[in-house]
Amino acid sequence: MQRLTSIALITVLAVLMVFTVHPVGADSKKIVAAIDAAGASCRGVSQQIWEFKELGQQEVKSAALLKEELAKLGYKVTGDLKVPDDLVKDGISKTAFKAEMAGKGPGPTVTLMLEYDALANGHACGHNLIATSGLLAAAGLAKVMKETPGRVFVIGTPDEERGSRGGGKVALLEGGYFDGTDVVFITHPNDRWSLDQRFLAMKRAMFTFKGKSSHAAASPHKGVNALRGVLLTFNCVDSLREHLRQDVRIHGIVTKGGAVVNVVPELAQAEFACRALDTATMENAYTKIVNCAKAAELGTGATLEFTEPRVALKATITDPALLETVQANLKTLGIAGSQLKDFDELASSDLGMVSYAYPTVNLWFKIAPEGTALHSDAMREAANTDDAWKSTLIAGKAVARSAYDMLTNPAKLKAVQDGFKEAKAKEGK
Amino acid sequence: MQRLTSIALITVLAVLMVFTVHPVGADSKKIVAAIDAAGASCRGVSQQIWEFKELGQQEVKSAALLKEELAKLGYKVTGDLKVPDDLVKDGISKTAFKAEMAGKGPGPTVTLMLEYDALANGHACGHNLIATSGLLAAAGLAKVMKETPGRVFVIGTPDEERGSRGGGKVALLEGGYFDGTDVVFITHPNDRWSLDQRFLAMKRAMFTFKGKSSHAAASPHKGVNALRGVLLTFNCVDSLREHLRQDVRIHGIVTKGGAVVNVVPELAQAEFACRALDTATMENAYTKIVNCAKAAELGTGATLEFTEPRVALKATITDPALLETVQANLKTLGIAGSQLKDFDELASSDLGMVSYAYPTVNLWFKIAPEGTALHSDAMREAANTDDAWKSTLIAGKAVARSAYDMLTNPAKLKAVQDGFKEAKAKEGK
Amino acid sequence: MQRLTSIALITVLAVLMVFTVHPVGADSKKIVAAIDAAGASCRGVSQQIWEFKELGQQEVKSAALLKEELAKLGYKVTGDLKVPDDLVKDGISKTAFKAEMAGKGPGPTVTLMLEYDALANGHACGHNLIATSGLLAAAGLAKVMKETPGRVFVIGTPDEERGSRGGGKVALLEGGYFDGTDVVFITHPNDRWSLDQRFLAMKRAMFTFKGKSSHAAASPHKGVNALRGVLLTFNCVDSLREHLRQDVRIHGIVTKGGAVVNVVPELAQAEFACRALDTATMENAYTKIVNCAKAAELGTGATLEFTEPRVALKATITDPALLETVQANLKTLGIAGSQLKDFDELASSDLGMVSYAYPTVNLWFKIAPEGTALHSDAMREAANTDDAWKSTLIAGKAVARSAYDMLTNPAKLKAVQDGFKEAKAKEGK
Amino acid sequence: MQRLTSIALITVLAVLMVFTVHPVGADSKKIVAAIDAAGASCRGVSQQIWEFKELGQQEVKSAALLKEELAKLGYKVTGDLKVPDDLVKDGISKTAFKAEMAGKGPGPTVTLMLEYDALANGHACGHNLIATSGLLAAAGLAKVMKETPGRVFVIGTPDEERGSRGGGKVALLEGGYFDGTDVVFITHPNDRWSLDQRFLAMKRAMFTFKGKSSHAAASPHKGVNALRGVLLTFNCVDSLREHLRQDVRIHGIVTKGGAVVNVVPELAQAEFACRALDTATMENAYTKIVNCAKAAELGTGATLEFTEPRVALKATITDPALLETVQANLKTLGIAGSQLKDFDELASSDLGMVSYAYPTVNLWFKIAPEGTALHSDAMREAANTDDAWKSTLIAGKAVARSAYDMLTNPAKLKAVQDGFKEAKAKEGK
Repeated sequence: MQRLTSIALITVLAVLMVFTVHPVGADSKKIVAAIDAAGASCRGVSQQIWEFKELGQQEVKSAALLKEELAKLGYKVTGDLKVPDDLVKDGISKTAFKAEMAGKGPGPTVTLMLEYDALANGHACGHNLIATSGLLAAAGLAKVMKETPGRVFVIGTPDEERGSRGGGKVALLEGGYFDGTDVVFITHPNDRWSLDQRFLAMKRAMFTFKGKSSHAAASPHKGVNALRGVLLTFNCVDSLREHLRQDVRIHGIVTKGGAVVNVVPELAQAEFACRALDTATMENAYTKIVNCAKAAELGTGATLEFTEPRVALKATITDPALLETVQANLKTLGIAGSQLKDFDELASSDLGMVSYAYPTVNLWFKIAPEGTALHSDAMREAANTDDAWKSTLIAGKAVARSAYDMLTNPAKLKAVQDGFKEAKAKEGK
Repeated sequence: MQRLTSIALITVLAVLMVFTVHPVGADSKKIVAAIDAAGASCRGVSQQIWEFKELGQQEVKSAALLKEELAKLGYKVTGDLKVPDDLVKDGISKTAFKAEMAGKGPGPTVTLMLEYDALANGHACGHNLIATSGLLAAAGLAKVMKETPGRVFVIGTPDEERGSRGGGKVALLEGGYFDGTDVVFITHPNDRWSLDQRFLAMKRAMFTFKGKSSHAAASPHKGVNALRGVLLTFNCVDSLREHLRQDVRIHGIVTKGGAVVNVVPELAQAEFACRALDTATMENAYTKIVNCAKAAELGTGATLEFTEPRVALKATITDPALLETVQANLKTLGIAGSQLKDFDELASSDLGMVSYAYPTVNLWFKIAPEGTALHSDAMREAANTDDAWKSTLIAGKAVARSAYDMLTNPAKLKAVQDGFKEAKAKEGK
Repeated sequence: MQRLTSIALITVLAVLMVFTVHPVGADSKKIVAAIDAAGASCRGVSQQIWEFKELGQQEVKSAALLKEELAKLGYKVTGDLKVPDDLVKDGISKTAFKAEMAGKGPGPTVTLMLEYDALANGHACGHNLIATSGLLAAAGLAKVMKETPGRVFVIGTPDEERGSRGGGKVALLEGGYFDGTDVVFITHPNDRWSLDQRFLAMKRAMFTFKGKSSHAAASPHKGVNALRGVLLTFNCVDSLREHLRQDVRIHGIVTKGGAVVNVVPELAQAEFACRALDTATMENAYTKIVNCAKAAELGTGATLEFTEPRVALKATITDPALLETVQANLKTLGIAGSQLKDFDELASSDLGMVSYAYPTVNLWFKIAPEGTALHSDAMREAANTDDAWKSTLIAGKAVARSAYDMLTNPAKLKAVQDGFKEAKAKEGK
Repeated sequence: MQRLTSIALITVLAVLMVFTVHPVGADSKKIVAAIDAAGASCRGVSQQIWEFKELGQQEVKSAALLKEELAKLGYKVTGDLKVPDDLVKDGISKTAFKAEMAGKGPGPTVTLMLEYDALANGHACGHNLIATSGLLAAAGLAKVMKETPGRVFVIGTPDEERGSRGGGKVALLEGGYFDGTDVVFITHPNDRWSLDQRFLAMKRAMFTFKGKSSHAAASPHKGVNALRGVLLTFNCVDSLREHLRQDVRIHGIVTKGGAVVNVVPELAQAEFACRALDTATMENAYTKIVNCAKAAELGTGATLEFTEPRVALKATITDPALLETVQANLKTLGIAGSQLKDFDELASSDLGMVSYAYPTVNLWFKIAPEGTALHSDAMREAANTDDAWKSTLIAGKAVARSAYDMLTNPAKLKAVQDGFKEAKAKEGK
């Protein structure tokens, strides 16, 4: 299915490319010029965020800096966003923000998402460049909004790396900060230019088994071994693998495996994650994993404690018309369609949730040699180079101009919206 | 528990031995003489049965021969016994029989059980000697019954080797052929003299899993693998083992494991047997095994088909006063208490079911060097030697005299009956 | 990898299509006319083979009929082909044959492969149509060979369904019957037109474990349980799955799982098959499976008996220039490129071995509604319809004309040969 | 085996009891009187140690108090004992001590062992009473040593609860502090009076598996999962259980089970303990466990790191003549042989190592209702009651008088020494 989908996609793109004539008008030039003008300043912002290297939920300085820059550009900026308190402590996302700028009259709303959280080894996922490519696009759009209908939202979405915990985009979606959006844009640095939109749906499961302790040598028959619940769950999950569709991923760890060797473990715990290319398939596999834990309870006599997690990540919805718009803009910026390459290896992101709510596109831009892994030290170093910055500028321009297309070309927006509905209807079928 | 039980038993025996004075009266001498007189003829019967080596349910010639001999001794003999037809085909046990002889007036009933089925490798379990030691005892008692109150039953119990299928003693118990019995006697040749009465309770389980076939390489995700049900059941059962009491035995085989390697198995099957020193513990472990199969169904999605077997074997009930009687008689026949040795390794028998219904004793008699395994070719050869015959004579005499004690000594019979009630009440506690 | 490979392929085809101008000359018309003339007769042959429904190695009547028809067309036919006697009993493949026809002078050799073995449920894989589409192509070429350089081989390759046993194409390859071939053609009916060449590399493993029998309840500690070897091998293989590339397939059955439940199994056996999109990846996974069996030996103490199988099937080598030739001919026969569809689900074939030795192409032709499964009863019925025959005629023509291209167009042949070398060099990298 | 051994033992004891005449001489009375005189003071010591509740290797105050009391009794006391530094940090056992008292001339050496380490929940194993029953015996012997040949050693053996780490008796044995000993005595409070000497041989195994991390969803095929090594080890160990002698105990925990769920674990670890009634059987099973870990390495590709532990505990050697001496003394102190009861549930102790080097006896004395578990809070409370103290006095007297017998009765000592040699020769056969 994976294979055929992308073949179909390429066919669609090929067909669309033939019929697309993409004029580069006066406003587009103005946008590009404004981005170039903002370049040096934004490069500095990128460098600072790279140096702050703040972890998720702790991106205080990064968020403050971005809010300040957006305010300078004329955006109305709000911080300390109220969100569900079972997703973010105390119900206030302190490192999220929302910036808004209204155009000359009613019209569509485009939303730019900025990420800026780091990993333990620094900005090895290059989120400093996500933030600043978004900032560049915001600067470009700011220059033309007085003559352009509609609105621009710039949403600071923290804590992406732990997105399946729900503290990032999920909390902001539920908090209503995307309400009214028509199209969402985001970028991500990587080892290639790509419009491959696939992120895997994902859901975690924490299985806690409770038993009864006893002396492991003197009276094992009087104990109930909680670790047996964990081990049988793994055996069961492994027995599923042969018969799951090949894009399904299940991976687990033992988080509690017994206290001391001479006592029958009364507490044991395993965490699993389940993923697939579409949400329905992931959910189906997830149900099987939960059944494995229930089977382990039934088979071993250890008591299972499990509650469905508050948050699961959906697979990305791909909107072909939106891809076409970005690809066309990229082409005029010197990135040909033949430079766009799909990925062999896929992960998950809270972006999937946004893509399920609104037409959304993520532009992968190349900052490192092909083969450089995300989260590696090499990627971290690449994220603060001049070469990376050149790509960041192109990414910012491509986003700004594509957003501008959505604001100004109702036919294109309609195509995007129709494509979104169709793609969503097909998801998981 | 195992250990302590037998220690307690030995203590009981030790105490009883001190107080038992065992007079060898006139009748006892008559019994012994009659057995000696019948010796040569019975030796021939033993030889013939050994040569017939008829498997369970097919012991036609052996049964006919025994019936003929019993009739000659004056017993009233009945064959073709009606039994439940879900235990024996057509509801007629053709190789079972019952022989009866009434005494001079009302009194207790003693029952001698005779086995005569062979194994694939011949009479490697020595049942020819069980039959003929019983025949000897029947001959001995026949001589004195005219002056002795009560009755003698001699029951031919076929098919012991497949006893857990229910075609032997279970069918005859249910058919009512033991009704009215007070005490049951049987013997068994082995590598030692022993009054160790322990047989393990036992129950079988046949788990059939149904799945859905599919091409194993092209579309494994469209199949449901029945073999997975079997394999996960084994994993689950193995995860139980650490926490079962150490005398519990669970052993299984895969009876159907898939048809061809390139098709997802739609049918798979495993058979298990569960055993323990007491019936309650066996049943408890059995429930856990069944839960494992149910867990495998839940965890793998293959459908489980399982029905409880028609027959389960109970553990033997040991009656201390009955042991004491036999041990005392053995002593006068030259087999001292110090020659009696318990077993390290235990199996199951349909004898357990009889012992649960009536006070029952099994006398192990030595026909081969210690260490010779039951069911071995060496044991088969031993079962047809003159040395074996000498022990068989002693066994027959010990049984006959013990049975005579039960018929003539009300106090002893009362002790046996009381001990039986007490032991049964304790079983599995 | 799977996905990108096929995308690359489509791109290659798309590019090639643009530049290919395919003139349909006089000889081509003659070929088509000859095939149309042979149509009615060949339809009868197809019907007969469908009714013979002879299993592999037993296709005596089918082979005789085909040999007779080929002889009528002027081919020199040889049967009873000598092959290695460890692949086919007695070293004579009685249902294989080779037919040859020389052209007007030296030139390339094209080989047509015919299959005609059935399944248990009849010609549910439609091999009757493989045979007759080949016969049609042979008829078409026969008409022009007098004026055409080179040679035609028509090889009857029996026993495809059990191809991994080596009795079909592998035996004929080793017997030298393909020697001198330049390009090999074959067809296969299915639920769609397709030039998807992918077949999975495949290798079987039969693991036999030997233990030591013992009474399963009395003395389990004195036995060595051979079934434990099998079960632990499955556990080990299942623990590999998470970390194998997603196109790898491993599937197994338990062929011997113990004799009777109360005896520790002294013999147990499992058969596995291992497959992957490329031969190197399959071999790598295969080594891991064998290590699992060795681990099971080490861990359980049961003795492993295993020898590498005589035959393993390689993955297909895809030759882009050859595909282009067939696709171009299909187009002129009314089957457009857009009608060609790849498969989601892949299996293995002894065709892979041929493709590794010579540039080879398999043309899938549509005889049933999309979604009809190979080996289903529905496919069997479809294989004997008039609609199916129409497709068979097209397939025969496409093969004949492509073969003719190879015989007459040295540049094309050179492109095919170069592409073959290149593809083979890349395999498994 | 377990069962028969103890039956044999009881038989031996029964036989010995008949022939033993145990005169209570003048010195014996003097010993008892001295112990009664020391009672009140020792009760205080017991109370203090109970309140100190110092964990193993930290029993500073308890050791100081005991050393002071022994010095008061006239013993020559040494602390800070030098031991192997790979068993105890810095090679000084700070909470061990040795006290010595020489008699009136050359003769045998008797050694009393004192334990005084607590558990997390206090003196729930009643070691305060082990220490003070030993102190009482030391007081009793002190009174008579001037007229008695030989020597008394009183060795403070710390850290029993973690004995398999080697910091207690093993370190002192290797340090030479038992050198010259003829017979060793120790006591232990429990829920019954018992001379059951069985402790299980025991050895630990720590298996560390190293793999290679990778993104668990994007590139699981590029990682090597260390947790797989652990899980397959458990599966393998579980597959052994059916075929181990029933007294073998294997129990394990997962000490490291992976760091985060989205990364293939590069480090995982499991700890196992293996035990059996005899050392040879334990070692045999241990080898099988290690083979399981090696099999897991071979089967999963994760690298195993394992080194045999520095210390393993041997099973206890039981010396029948020594038991007889203690039992005879107990009888004169009011504890009849019929009050002595064996245990159903067995554990391990570093006492086993001492018993392997010297004839050793452990006297279990009753301080709590039958069924009260060692290490329970109920046992902790029982260890500080007046009723417990009464038993402690009897235990101290029984030890002192038995030790006196060894010092003064060469025939008895010879019987003990001969029995020791014989028992040791048989161990594990």
